[in-house]
Amino acid sequence: MKARPKAFLFDVFGTVVDWRSGVAFYAERIFAAKGIDFDSAQFADRWRGQYQPAMQRIRDGKRGYVVLDTLHRENLDLLLAETGLEDRFDDDERDELTQAWECLPPWPDSVEGLRKFRELGFIAPCSNGSIRLMIRLARFATLPWDTILGADIAGNYKPQPEVYRKSCSAIGLQPGEVMMIAAHNEDLAAARDVGLMTGFLPRATEHGPGQDADLEATGDWDVIGHSIGDLASRCG
Amino acid sequence: MKARPKAFLFDVFGTVVDWRSGVAFYAERIFAAKGIDFDSAQFADRWRGQYQPAMQRIRDGKRGYVVLDTLHRENLDLLLAETGLEDRFDDDERDELTQAWECLPPWPDSVEGLRKFRELGFIAPCSNGSIRLMIRLARFATLPWDTILGADIAGNYKPQPEVYRKSCSAIGLQPGEVMMIAAHNEDLAAARDVGLMTGFLPRATEHGPGQDADLEATGDWDVIGHSIGDLASRCG
Repeated sequence: MKARPKAFLFDVFGTVVDWRSGVAFYAERIFAAKGIDFDSAQFADRWRGQYQPAMQRIRDGKRGYVVLDTLHRENLDLLLAETGLEDRFDDDERDELTQAWECLPPWPDSVEGLRKFRELGFIAPCSNGSIRLMIRLARFATLPWDTILGADIAGNYKPQPEVYRKSCSAIGLQPGEVMMIAAHNEDLAAARDVGLMTGFLPRATEHGPGQDADLEATGDWDVIGHSIGDLASRCG
Repeated sequence: MKARPKAFLFDVFGTVVDWRSGVAFYAERIFAAKGIDFDSAQFADRWRGQYQPAMQRIRDGKRGYVVLDTLHRENLDLLLAETGLEDRFDDDERDELTQAWECLPPWPDSVEGLRKFRELGFIAPCSNGSIRLMIRLARFATLPWDTILGADIAGNYKPQPEVYRKSCSAIGLQPGEVMMIAAHNEDLAAARDVGLMTGFLPRATEHGPGQDADLEATGDWDVIGHSIGDLASRCG
């Protein structure tokens, strides 16, 4: 690390919150009420499986920018069709189920870790989630952000370079003054390409017990730690 | 009021924080250390006096958007020249003095009032201050914003319509779902023109004891109250 960063941007889904457990828990509750017998963790995985392809069309310029809330809702329609649950959810119920993505638990170290980072500089999400989604998630998970940055600021999705670049310029900083923190090596590689400092921590169960990617750092990131709080200590 | 707003946008300088006392206090401290004998409240008033003309050039398209931090700093140069204090401050000291605008006390009812509003919907500043300035001010004054909106989001200054419009769209809402709250009738008139709901409260000493504008509502705003908390009660 060259100098202490003035701001810390965080990936959120997977890095700060446990989307898989959160979506599964939220879906499970609704499935139980409806008498639906479907593995809710598999449901979460398959919903998340649509995430990258949906964003890719926008990154490739084949579709204009729409917020992630819209992609989650569209992807739910695809998933319900694939799983034979199409007739069990009307439009309002699909909207409600999509709110699962706003009700995700923080990993046990996240909130305290973010508070430690907050003493070192500005903290903000640099997520593919919309500002609206990030606000609701921040309230649910008590994430003490200074403001919300990320995809909505740039009108595009990570790892497109403008998402990192515009998130820095929105707070009046150069990329070299900012650190991106993520549990995903690809996210950090893209941030580094733009000139940000990088911090990695593993989330070995983000994708459940069989996870085989991002179990460790695959780049020489500026800081590597085992939790958000540990990373903060190493940056302080 | 038609329906309860989903989000509340707040003017900040004058409405949420007492810029005049804050800037005067901050300047006074520096003047005392330097042995400068100059009325610090007058200094604050004259600095603020440059505020509208500096933004007007940008609103008129005579100058591209620059953040308010830059305008404050430029206006300080003008003010120091006018007041014969030009030789008393080097560049670093001018930068430090400009930070006065990040260290402004909330009015006594602001923080508790914002907390009440936060139970009703999203809350965010829609100020002419930059995101960076608003973050620092929020930390100083403990303002519990969900995110930062306003001039930086639009790349222009209030009362230009796009500042209100883009602040709403950034959180995925229509103007009719959002209320603008300000102690300035002109701000509310511009917000209403774009379709926002409006809430007014007077700040009778914003400009000191001789204030003669904005002592009361001059429009039939949707809600009128005597404090931020009072407005929240009327909206709840």
